[in-house]
Amino acid sequence: MVARIYNFSPGPATLPYEVLEQSAKDMVNFQETGMGVIELSHRSKEFTAVTEQAERLLRELLEIPGNYKVLFLQGGASSQFYMIPMNFLGKGRKATYLNTGTWAKKAIKEATLFGKIDVAFSNEKENFNRVPSAGEYTVSNESEFLYFVSNNTIYGTQFHNLPKTEKMLFSDMSSDILSRRLDISRFGLIFAGAQKNLGPAGVTVVIIREDLLDRVPSDIPTMLSYKTHADKKSMFNTPPCFAIYIVGEVLKWLKNMGGIDAIARINDQKANLLYEAIDSGNYYRGHAEASSRSKMNVSFNLPSAELEQQFITEAAQKGMSGLKGHRSIGGCRASIYNAFPLEGVTKLVEFMHEFERENPA
Amino acid sequence: MVARIYNFSPGPATLPYEVLEQSAKDMVNFQETGMGVIELSHRSKEFTAVTEQAERLLRELLEIPGNYKVLFLQGGASSQFYMIPMNFLGKGRKATYLNTGTWAKKAIKEATLFGKIDVAFSNEKENFNRVPSAGEYTVSNESEFLYFVSNNTIYGTQFHNLPKTEKMLFSDMSSDILSRRLDISRFGLIFAGAQKNLGPAGVTVVIIREDLLDRVPSDIPTMLSYKTHADKKSMFNTPPCFAIYIVGEVLKWLKNMGGIDAIARINDQKANLLYEAIDSGNYYRGHAEASSRSKMNVSFNLPSAELEQQFITEAAQKGMSGLKGHRSIGGCRASIYNAFPLEGVTKLVEFMHEFERENPA
Repeated sequence: MVARIYNFSPGPATLPYEVLEQSAKDMVNFQETGMGVIELSHRSKEFTAVTEQAERLLRELLEIPGNYKVLFLQGGASSQFYMIPMNFLGKGRKATYLNTGTWAKKAIKEATLFGKIDVAFSNEKENFNRVPSAGEYTVSNESEFLYFVSNNTIYGTQFHNLPKTEKMLFSDMSSDILSRRLDISRFGLIFAGAQKNLGPAGVTVVIIREDLLDRVPSDIPTMLSYKTHADKKSMFNTPPCFAIYIVGEVLKWLKNMGGIDAIARINDQKANLLYEAIDSGNYYRGHAEASSRSKMNVSFNLPSAELEQQFITEAAQKGMSGLKGHRSIGGCRASIYNAFPLEGVTKLVEFMHEFERENPA
Repeated sequence: MVARIYNFSPGPATLPYEVLEQSAKDMVNFQETGMGVIELSHRSKEFTAVTEQAERLLRELLEIPGNYKVLFLQGGASSQFYMIPMNFLGKGRKATYLNTGTWAKKAIKEATLFGKIDVAFSNEKENFNRVPSAGEYTVSNESEFLYFVSNNTIYGTQFHNLPKTEKMLFSDMSSDILSRRLDISRFGLIFAGAQKNLGPAGVTVVIIREDLLDRVPSDIPTMLSYKTHADKKSMFNTPPCFAIYIVGEVLKWLKNMGGIDAIARINDQKANLLYEAIDSGNYYRGHAEASSRSKMNVSFNLPSAELEQQFITEAAQKGMSGLKGHRSIGGCRASIYNAFPLEGVTKLVEFMHEFERENPA
């Protein structure tokens, strides 16, 4: 049997091994029901308890205020790109978006189908190597909300402070939800595809301020209305049961780890180790400007594309996979979400030093 | 450890035990990669092979012609209710729908948001106890397609012959896909939520005639265009990886069972056993008219609601769960999809006779 490897993939990503082991048991016989977890009716008391527990743990860990609904939806974060404007914009209505990368850009494209979109910041020309600081953009008074991507998976940039505005915030937190403390009350809506920090691909968590549900138009398809899913507690139709179950298991694991503050400390530690290695000489170069560096995705280059390829290949031979950078910027990327173990980062850092010694530029 | 029970749930439903056992192994270490199947990048060669194999097996088992695309989408069958008219209707365009139950009715409701819907048949007043025969409805010349639900899960009715029309057929086959032979070439589009005959909740299979993709409007959200997913082989965004993987495993199992004709024979056998038990006296009454009886969902009543409740409770004590009928028609329902074993049906039939003897009306 091949030993477990260190999986630096950007998503679907590594999950806690305890969660995988538990799910393997539950797959054939869930809680002594004589049925596997994926065979349970979504309306059974057993599965209802699974969903309720996942929601309860998410509320507890993120300290979600009582006036927010938690939804488990399908379609990926990409479906939120159009659901948001379909639910909250419309003829003549406006929203402000910050263009900090591929996923922001895709969200802007979809939003433009439904309303007037004000792109208040974009640094595409610098290949999205940073996020804006507070003074760099203005949010017009007519905007319904300010939309931003809190962590840019591809470029390895992250907002370290929430954008300053009196408007409510809407945010794609697919790649950093639950990685640090968050003041939910500043938000109208937060969404996150699960496959990075929350669980497997196939479910998207939406946290939405309750009063916004009254603004949802009644003439959109039933399945595309946030109100439908909020009213039915994500059970209007058959939900993605297995993915919700795994999210619940990941949240249990996170609580056992000590919760958000504990994981945030470990995330700091992991990111610091990697950025120190990058900054220790001129061999490695980080893609992101230092002030915007992501603690989830560390994108970096080596002196040449050939060395990068060699680095990725040799790392894989040493049991570290998924280090190839996104095709849009090339280079290398280490994705170190909550479930990625510190030991894996230590091992990568050792390898980085070794590789530099053995392959001078 | 509780022995495996016979799970008559309508969906999510029972799956082949071999599939569950294999998935439990793959959950912690997929094909000796040192990663669990849900940790694999959707763009990795390993996961690409998983998706390709699932598609290849589906094509082989259903004999899908080369001019059809197979898509693995999210959002459940309920999302097809609006995606179909959003992609293929529009101002002034018309389609014909047959209203044979709850799911047809929901599809009609969503379609009405996008086009002119001609409901050519409805027997809601008879509580949907049968499907129409060929002469009972007409499909107008201006209709783009004829939409029908091939098997009505709640009422236990099924089309035993394809509707007669020169128009192309669109069909919701969520609850009977792969249960019998099918002439795909009659269809423009077929869709099926996986959680009955194909796998777990979380993925919907769409089979679509290639030339229809040219009719998809370009001004709809990217994620809602069939063309997007066809062009990107269901990898435009992160797909529901685990659900696709299980579909592939279920298809392998089905192929090993002997394929469609073999499973259709077993399905006939299972359904016949149950309907014979129902018809053997006046104690049990089938909901569906004999000519429309479903081979997937057998809905029936006992002499009283009290006896039905007692029947369901005692059956559960004997290891047969999920026999409660849908709340909209009450009574009992045995869902006996492909993966439901013949032995379970035999056991239920024995219990039906025993219960009748011990609890005279």
